[in-house]
Amino acid sequence: MKDTIAAFKKHLSKLGAYEHAMSKLYNDSVTVMPPKGSEVVGNAMGVLSEEEYKLATSSELRDMIETILAHKDEVDLITLREAEEKHEELCKLEKIPMDEYVQHQIDVNAASAAWHEAKATNDFELFRPHLEKMVAFNRKMAHYYAPDKPAYDTLLNEYEKGLTMETLDKFFADVRKKVVPLLNDIVARGRRIDTDFLDKEYPVDKQRILTDRLMKIMCMDPQRSCIGETEHPYTINFTKNDVRIMTHYHSDMLLSSFYSVVHEAGHATYELNIGDELTDSFLGSGVSMGVHESQSRLYENIIGRSEEFMSVVYDDLKELFPEQLKDVTREQLFLAANKVEPSLIRTEADELTYPLHIMVRYELEKQLISGTLEVKDLPKAWNEMMKEYLGVDVPSDTEGVLQDSHWSGGMFGYFPSYAIGSAYGAQMIAAMKQDFDVMEQVKSGELQPIIDWLTERIYRFGCIKKPKELVENACKAEFDPKYYTDYLSEKFTKIYQL
Amino acid sequence: MKDTIAAFKKHLSKLGAYEHAMSKLYNDSVTVMPPKGSEVVGNAMGVLSEEEYKLATSSELRDMIETILAHKDEVDLITLREAEEKHEELCKLEKIPMDEYVQHQIDVNAASAAWHEAKATNDFELFRPHLEKMVAFNRKMAHYYAPDKPAYDTLLNEYEKGLTMETLDKFFADVRKKVVPLLNDIVARGRRIDTDFLDKEYPVDKQRILTDRLMKIMCMDPQRSCIGETEHPYTINFTKNDVRIMTHYHSDMLLSSFYSVVHEAGHATYELNIGDELTDSFLGSGVSMGVHESQSRLYENIIGRSEEFMSVVYDDLKELFPEQLKDVTREQLFLAANKVEPSLIRTEADELTYPLHIMVRYELEKQLISGTLEVKDLPKAWNEMMKEYLGVDVPSDTEGVLQDSHWSGGMFGYFPSYAIGSAYGAQMIAAMKQDFDVMEQVKSGELQPIIDWLTERIYRFGCIKKPKELVENACKAEFDPKYYTDYLSEKFTKIYQL
Repeated sequence: MKDTIAAFKKHLSKLGAYEHAMSKLYNDSVTVMPPKGSEVVGNAMGVLSEEEYKLATSSELRDMIETILAHKDEVDLITLREAEEKHEELCKLEKIPMDEYVQHQIDVNAASAAWHEAKATNDFELFRPHLEKMVAFNRKMAHYYAPDKPAYDTLLNEYEKGLTMETLDKFFADVRKKVVPLLNDIVARGRRIDTDFLDKEYPVDKQRILTDRLMKIMCMDPQRSCIGETEHPYTINFTKNDVRIMTHYHSDMLLSSFYSVVHEAGHATYELNIGDELTDSFLGSGVSMGVHESQSRLYENIIGRSEEFMSVVYDDLKELFPEQLKDVTREQLFLAANKVEPSLIRTEADELTYPLHIMVRYELEKQLISGTLEVKDLPKAWNEMMKEYLGVDVPSDTEGVLQDSHWSGGMFGYFPSYAIGSAYGAQMIAAMKQDFDVMEQVKSGELQPIIDWLTERIYRFGCIKKPKELVENACKAEFDPKYYTDYLSEKFTKIYQL
Repeated sequence: MKDTIAAFKKHLSKLGAYEHAMSKLYNDSVTVMPPKGSEVVGNAMGVLSEEEYKLATSSELRDMIETILAHKDEVDLITLREAEEKHEELCKLEKIPMDEYVQHQIDVNAASAAWHEAKATNDFELFRPHLEKMVAFNRKMAHYYAPDKPAYDTLLNEYEKGLTMETLDKFFADVRKKVVPLLNDIVARGRRIDTDFLDKEYPVDKQRILTDRLMKIMCMDPQRSCIGETEHPYTINFTKNDVRIMTHYHSDMLLSSFYSVVHEAGHATYELNIGDELTDSFLGSGVSMGVHESQSRLYENIIGRSEEFMSVVYDDLKELFPEQLKDVTREQLFLAANKVEPSLIRTEADELTYPLHIMVRYELEKQLISGTLEVKDLPKAWNEMMKEYLGVDVPSDTEGVLQDSHWSGGMFGYFPSYAIGSAYGAQMIAAMKQDFDVMEQVKSGELQPIIDWLTERIYRFGCIKKPKELVENACKAEFDPKYYTDYLSEKFTKIYQL
């Protein structure tokens, strides 16, 4: 048994090396690589993913896993959970023919490049054939994984174990019932909030200094984390000792990179605080997209867009941008950061309309995957739904269906985790408030007790516990979207003086 | 035969993918990775390099190569040259017993760590046993490769094919005969050159703008190249479509990053202009260290430190640093960039004393490899030779024998390529001057004709031709160090008004 475990660990360590290399190639390609460097990356990714596929599906691995799972009592919890996870992965991977798997990696690379160009030139047709391949692969993959389940449920499960259309349909119905009337009220009779001062010229070198200060406030360990720049902000973790945030600076928007950094720092904080005992294992990262988004959105919105957080950063902002923020009060800054306005771009959306952007994607993904919507009809369907849910006219595909990178990366079923994450986060903060005065803590500028509370209940477990278990562990109750819709109602009723 | 070639290409493409991934992991680790991220990189590198070794020495590869070499008439030139190169590599690798090869990789790692500590603490004794292992391995390796050849000639051949002690002894004798008296004259009766203004405060963000302008002057294609930051400047190329320059900014030195960028841009220009037909082959990069250094040193010194180049960048410098360069004339800037001063550190040496630093290393390496000098006696020998050649007293091993990393990386025979490169470069420029007025071209700020001339004769060939062939191709004559020593004499006699 000892030998089996040692061989199993060695095999996983090898597998980890390939994943590590591929993640770094990806990260390099979207941060510092010159544009024309992409072709050769495709070849390298193809070779490495083929090797990774072989390692992840090898019969030796299967034998080791089966031995371990047959002797559960003789192995430690970490090894057992690794064996369970790898077993599930292996069973799924085996169902995809190797040539299709490898081809998909190559297709993703091409789709990503085509999407970049299509978005830059507002040319959906350029992206269409690639997107068709991505949809087709996802439908096929879902069928391989679970031929008897609705395909979209299978895809949802990839990003948030256990999440189904049944849960989401109910969740989005609740959100819609609360958010749409509130939004209508705000548009019809809410106060007018001034945000003009946010769009002045904010030099990027000063914004970089602001980022450094935010990293400190968010307690990011500089020995284990860093900041980079890219087109679309994201967080990437190689181990808990190497977690990187990528942001994008717009010199004419004060809060764009600001909230990207706070959002991504939420993801990073999760990764940085995973238990040390999991560092060398395959369980040493965040458990799911939903739980991950609960953290990023909790930091970005509930904490980051609060009056209390604004009072912490206000002096820094005034010091860095004395001219631009002349005569701007704390209160004005807080209101500007929470201005509600139906708009085109998800990543720039306010907290209240944000879930409606997700609903659009959720409904369209469901239709694409079920086959009731064809890719060629997607731009039209997108524009109609944006009009229906948000009341906005979409002037171009660049600002419409081409805005997000997810589909070009072959990811369907991912978007809902953003909305469900917001709801997890609201429920977690409600639970935290039972233990101490959270917003008073934020106001003090000392976020460590909040991080500690979440580390104790969520972060340290990595992938040891399942998402549902973690949420219930933190909230001491089942998941309930009411906390989220109540939070939104209360916050925006007050801000808009309805 | 067609099948063999296809299989051979596929095998090389796989090998290339591993090399690509390892290069990128390395590059990431010394540029953007947070400090504590290193542990997991070691594991990934170990896994990938083991796989790469297996691919590079596999019997399948040997069979394919032998088939190709047995049917030379049936294959294209690129495939043939790839087969020849891989055959040579494979034959060499096979001669080293696997356990010794693996042990050496481990020893290099340890030697590198020990060197860092020894340098930081000025403690040669700490490094001594590691250096002894490096010397012993190099002697043994040279014997395995070519038991009947002088060991140091075998090592030289690793970095510059065809280079021998016979050539170098003659070369360095010439250099010494010309440079040492000239240096003595300069020290004794040359004019005094003011460089104080170079050490004012030059903000890094402004230096970054300067770098962007230099990249434009050097005709670096922004679609295929980029700039990064690291501790020790270098150039890294993944293909001719992804060539990156890394520099290091010192806010109290105007010309440090400036000349690093011009130097590295010389390396990069070589890589960026290799023939398109070689991009997907193993021949698509610069042929040797010597030829590479000929380009970097030609751009840095002959072009970059000329009056003509200074007049091109002068207005940019004055615009970026109006306060710091107030009252500094073009002439003063040119003189400051060419100040001669015997000093301790190779990488900071001026153009005239630089080859003397290389001579010290060359003489000592020869003795270490032949066995006439023991490692324990190396610091004393170093200090004596620095006194003899450069007239300087070495106050510590940190500023002496421990300053460079090459020996800790197990590299002996590498240093001479720096000096021989300078000499190649001088002879190439002399040949170019037969075709057009090179310095007038530099003065116009339009370097493309210079790049075109070199591309036609050197760059485009990648590894198709051998170094000697390339140099003779460009110079229409055999290599002759006279061009280099004449260039140095003429330039510095004039500058120092001797």
